Amino acid sequence: MSKTKGRVTLPSESHFLKETREMLDRWGADALRDSDGTKLDDEIKSLDAKIYTTYFVARGHNEFAEKHMDECQQMLLMSKHNLALDTTVTIDFLDGYFREQVQADYVHDPKKWWEVIDRTTQEIVPLDSWSVDTDRHLVTVTDAVPFHEYTVSFFVYAIWDPTQMYNHITNNWGDKPHDIPFDVRQPASGAFARDYLKKWLADNPDTDVVRFTTFFYHFTLVFNADAKEKFVDWFGYGATVSIRALEEFEQEYGYALRPEDIVDNGYYNTTFRVPTKAYRDYMEFIQKFVARKAKELVDLVHDAGREAMMFLGDNWIGTEPYGPYFESIGLDAVVGSVGGGATLRLISDIPGVKYTEGRFLPYFFPDTFYEGNDPCVEAIDNWLSARRALMRNPVDRIGYGGYLSLAYKFPKFVDYIEKVTDEFRLIYDNVKGKKPYCGLKVAILNSWGGLRSWQSYMVAHALWYKQTYSYFGILESLSGAAVDVVFMSFDDIRNNGIPKDIDVIINAGDAGTAFSGGEEWLDEKLITTVRRWIHEGGGFVGVGDPSAVHRGGRFFQLADVLGVDKELGFTLSTDKYFKDALDTHFITEDRTGCFDFGESRHDIYALSASTEIIEYSDNEVHLAANAYGSGRGVYIAGLPYSYENTRLLMRVLYFAAHKEESFLRWYADNVNCEVNAYPESGKYAILNNSNEEQTTNFYDGEGTCEKLTLRPCEILWR
Amino acid sequence: MSKTKGRVTLPSESHFLKETREMLDRWGADALRDSDGTKLDDEIKSLDAKIYTTYFVARGHNEFAEKHMDECQQMLLMSKHNLALDTTVTIDFLDGYFREQVQADYVHDPKKWWEVIDRTTQEIVPLDSWSVDTDRHLVTVTDAVPFHEYTVSFFVYAIWDPTQMYNHITNNWGDKPHDIPFDVRQPASGAFARDYLKKWLADNPDTDVVRFTTFFYHFTLVFNADAKEKFVDWFGYGATVSIRALEEFEQEYGYALRPEDIVDNGYYNTTFRVPTKAYRDYMEFIQKFVARKAKELVDLVHDAGREAMMFLGDNWIGTEPYGPYFESIGLDAVVGSVGGGATLRLISDIPGVKYTEGRFLPYFFPDTFYEGNDPCVEAIDNWLSARRALMRNPVDRIGYGGYLSLAYKFPKFVDYIEKVTDEFRLIYDNVKGKKPYCGLKVAILNSWGGLRSWQSYMVAHALWYKQTYSYFGILESLSGAAVDVVFMSFDDIRNNGIPKDIDVIINAGDAGTAFSGGEEWLDEKLITTVRRWIHEGGGFVGVGDPSAVHRGGRFFQLADVLGVDKELGFTLSTDKYFKDALDTHFITEDRTGCFDFGESRHDIYALSASTEIIEYSDNEVHLAANAYGSGRGVYIAGLPYSYENTRLLMRVLYFAAHKEESFLRWYADNVNCEVNAYPESGKYAILNNSNEEQTTNFYDGEGTCEKLTLRPCEILWR
Repeated sequence: MSKTKGRVTLPSESHFLKETREMLDRWGADALRDSDGTKLDDEIKSLDAKIYTTYFVARGHNEFAEKHMDECQQMLLMSKHNLALDTTVTIDFLDGYFREQVQADYVHDPKKWWEVIDRTTQEIVPLDSWSVDTDRHLVTVTDAVPFHEYTVSFFVYAIWDPTQMYNHITNNWGDKPHDIPFDVRQPASGAFARDYLKKWLADNPDTDVVRFTTFFYHFTLVFNADAKEKFVDWFGYGATVSIRALEEFEQEYGYALRPEDIVDNGYYNTTFRVPTKAYRDYMEFIQKFVARKAKELVDLVHDAGREAMMFLGDNWIGTEPYGPYFESIGLDAVVGSVGGGATLRLISDIPGVKYTEGRFLPYFFPDTFYEGNDPCVEAIDNWLSARRALMRNPVDRIGYGGYLSLAYKFPKFVDYIEKVTDEFRLIYDNVKGKKPYCGLKVAILNSWGGLRSWQSYMVAHALWYKQTYSYFGILESLSGAAVDVVFMSFDDIRNNGIPKDIDVIINAGDAGTAFSGGEEWLDEKLITTVRRWIHEGGGFVGVGDPSAVHRGGRFFQLADVLGVDKELGFTLSTDKYFKDALDTHFITEDRTGCFDFGESRHDIYALSASTEIIEYSDNEVHLAANAYGSGRGVYIAGLPYSYENTRLLMRVLYFAAHKEESFLRWYADNVNCEVNAYPESGKYAILNNSNEEQTTNFYDGEGTCEKLTLRPCEILWR
Repeated sequence: MSKTKGRVTLPSESHFLKETREMLDRWGADALRDSDGTKLDDEIKSLDAKIYTTYFVARGHNEFAEKHMDECQQMLLMSKHNLALDTTVTIDFLDGYFREQVQADYVHDPKKWWEVIDRTTQEIVPLDSWSVDTDRHLVTVTDAVPFHEYTVSFFVYAIWDPTQMYNHITNNWGDKPHDIPFDVRQPASGAFARDYLKKWLADNPDTDVVRFTTFFYHFTLVFNADAKEKFVDWFGYGATVSIRALEEFEQEYGYALRPEDIVDNGYYNTTFRVPTKAYRDYMEFIQKFVARKAKELVDLVHDAGREAMMFLGDNWIGTEPYGPYFESIGLDAVVGSVGGGATLRLISDIPGVKYTEGRFLPYFFPDTFYEGNDPCVEAIDNWLSARRALMRNPVDRIGYGGYLSLAYKFPKFVDYIEKVTDEFRLIYDNVKGKKPYCGLKVAILNSWGGLRSWQSYMVAHALWYKQTYSYFGILESLSGAAVDVVFMSFDDIRNNGIPKDIDVIINAGDAGTAFSGGEEWLDEKLITTVRRWIHEGGGFVGVGDPSAVHRGGRFFQLADVLGVDKELGFTLSTDKYFKDALDTHFITEDRTGCFDFGESRHDIYALSASTEIIEYSDNEVHLAANAYGSGRGVYIAGLPYSYENTRLLMRVLYFAAHKEESFLRWYADNVNCEVNAYPESGKYAILNNSNEEQTTNFYDGEGTCEKLTLRPCEILWR
């Protein structure tokens, strides 16, 4: 591969000039950034590269914050459940919270802003039945009902920025001051944020790109009394909540939010909850505010002739890059961490910015770069999984983070990344702006739709969870697959119907969650629209507990479409006749390995003889298809990510869409290989997604077959 | 063992006199019965044994039934779900039903008695929006909403007795007439049943015991269009339903039942459904009627100087042997089939009869008694499992069924049963009427309570179901364990509180079922009563989804008691810290094998550090204990039956009850062995429940230990 240059960002650090120059050259980098714990000195800044500088808006200015503690950020928290043993129960509402992070807000009247709830009945305890001891931080409920459980929803000041708190505690920073987060919704803080940035831009003329890390509100991250993580929601609006916000919400929306609208039984409206009207309104309210305020800062950056880049993480809450207000911020770029294909697409698909950048793994930190370890292992894995997605829609730049001096000590790693950066530029040149061949258009249907594109099933940015991996595999599979992917909400269907160009709808998730939809499926407009669309030829793929909510003799409301339902115990008296899987089926035609449904679902059974059972074991169905009018339904018990399951999903989609006959267009039959074609340019690429040599039958756009052998990790461009 | 006599019933048959006499002698039998397909001739009847004769009340009299087809039994059935494609949908409501079993009832006005339901909204379709084509058996709904699903609930006449239908079809009885079931609620049928019995008693002077098989209404058994079982509910009141019954219900209870009260979404109020008020009322209404009518027949039997025995099965519906009306029938005896310990206790614990009899397995039929097979295998298994329960509360008699001539050809089997009958008589003499030592009193808590004692988790009399065996194991374990067992309903607790002498409450079942309780747990009186009782020292054992219904931030409403809850996806953001099982625990102290939680439950997590995790694997808790005030909660993910799990359950119960210190009283540490003590008589027995020699440490009533070796299957009496 010939040496190319550009589209790569390196971290650097002081006193590392010569080596930085060498690395810029070898990796073809054209931008340098500081990193957590590093600064760029003037010599480095004078190199032939753009300079990114990390900028914190709402923290890191204690000289201001300490003088305006009344403008400190807030949160609404819920206490533990407290059992009443008699008619009085005293609640240590801060029990379990980290006192260095949060302090009860007694400035605002608890009787106006707090809520005590009887969780046994879900009733609000009357105001005259409870009191607060502000010295000892206790709420006492009188007139309690013995053996009911009570919770207190209470306001706190959040006095320590969560990211700095995490780094501080993890790295034992001792008496280093705690960054106090202030709220730009408050008058002095709003003004300070603007004024300081203006001054900072003047003081930092070498900075080409202001890397906002990020704006105003951190995702919800609450620590426990032992200074360990207690609650983490990468999508959580917890830190946006304040008395002032609720007051302004009421003015703007004409109704007041209850604390319960925020604390939500202690679930805090995680992304797995089907969002309420009140919470949706609140999110919109915050997004509008964040967009307006962020635009003020971005305008200042542009006025100073610099670029504004947003880090997708930390204080990103309210920006919602796929939301309706994001584009109005006027950002030049978004940069985010790439854990695999889905997180790459989460970045590269963001609309309304000039460019996107992915920060690849591994981070140049001692946890990976230590003697005896080979950082290439993680790098290859990260690259191969993200590369699939680059072939569909590339980020415009890639980059790395951490200590460049550390990576420099691993020559094999430096060699490997040299190849990666060249390969990235080649991909980019071949792919960017050229619509790849898509055999199908797939819509992922859930409560969030487009607003949370590529963000389904995530708790804390792509971490593995037992309850999510069997669904997240769908996104990871699709991120690099030759299909168009859109995200559709139940509201989209209610308001606009189902677009004609959709081939297959996927509904996947645990019963009752926002991803399955819970009681949304009781809405007759939704279900009749979906049923009609399938009956008229659409494809519907359900994974896990699709359309699950118990009513009318069905658990899967679309059991009629899927041909299967779940036995809840109520139909044990009804004979289940259909227990034999078909010997062959299009969906499993070239299958070699065992099935892997991950956590799977249980007690699924076929409704009738017309259900095509594809996999049956342990007295239950895990994979089945069903004709429904002119359309088809397919049920899968779970789909953890693997190349086998990616292939399985592709076959499922083609079958559901009734497009089996075009399955062999631009296709490689070895599951480790994939084909991407770019009709506009006439180019196509056959990928070996594995680090071993692979032989495959390759089918071109007409389905003509050719046998090929690919080197480990090879992309064969033609 | 010395030769004894009595308490044993044999089947016999014509032309088998000599051998019958020999068998009477060898097995010490004192009663003879006819059987399905056999008759006793006069010679046999003259032997020195009581004569049982099978008697059918409501079938087997076609000469009467054919003249009174208007008094034929009825059912209310529900059609399949039918998808409307436009505003008219035509429903073949009999589709899937067996036309030789059921015929639509057009005698009574469908517009008055039937119901068409929009299952998408659960709304009743107005009467003027549907019509019936009685020629083609179709219901047409006009004004349908496209892509809604519709069902028809309709009355049928049931023209074939289900047991005869089953035997007829299974045995290819060809053109043998179909037994037509008639309804004694109707005037002519009621009179016929009495008159015929009177005459029959006169005609059958040799009969000592009238073996009613059974009374009026068969458990729900509906066949499909292919003449195969479609729906079977051993507890189902389906065959009791008729127009007349509903009319009389309305008169008696002051309100009318809707068809939906009976068909219940197609679940037909199976025993797994939390019963509604309407269905409970209906059951009571039927029980009162059945008891009144059955008493008329039993009185006739007594007037004729005979005994009345009821077969627990077939047409037993409405008798409810544990219900409040059963005793008033005045039966002398109940006989039922014994599949194991729980089904034995189901018979032996029945109150209000002079004696009970268990029909043991194998049935003397060619499916077991064929050349090359050893019927002893099934016999030993059946005997060992039932024997445990006999040691706690024996039936008064045992018996066998089928062709004695067949069994006679297997001398090894005859030898074995000779030993069994002697062993039974010895057990009976030592145990009957003597309260065995009970270390604990355990209450099984569900919607049914005492009414369905020993009948939990059953669909079709002890058949294995994937969804039940992990709970049924609890009953099977308890049936032979040294604990008192009572069955308690949610209503019992609401109405009477929890009796002081209960040590442990067990709540076990799948979420939403009558055995777990579903929304019953939202009743604050119930939950506060249970919480208080545990807090004051009670033990609570939850298996599967105990107290499960989602509200107030909890799925297990008694999560505070159990120390665990189930992750539904809504608390993924909340860190789960507690993942380490304790190294040792009383509950697992002498455990040798692997854990077996059967189907298990998933995603269970510990709530706090005070939860004692006893088993943790695959990122979830399966066994845990928790202190709650002075009481304790224990969670088990599932408990299929085995000797290991019986031991586990015993330890769980003693731990929950805070009685660990008395665990070693009357105890054998080898899991294959059990001890039963009878303080009144000073006797005790050490059982070897296995067919292999076992060595065990035996602890007497003071906990003094002695090492013993027991022969295969031995009971060591002292």
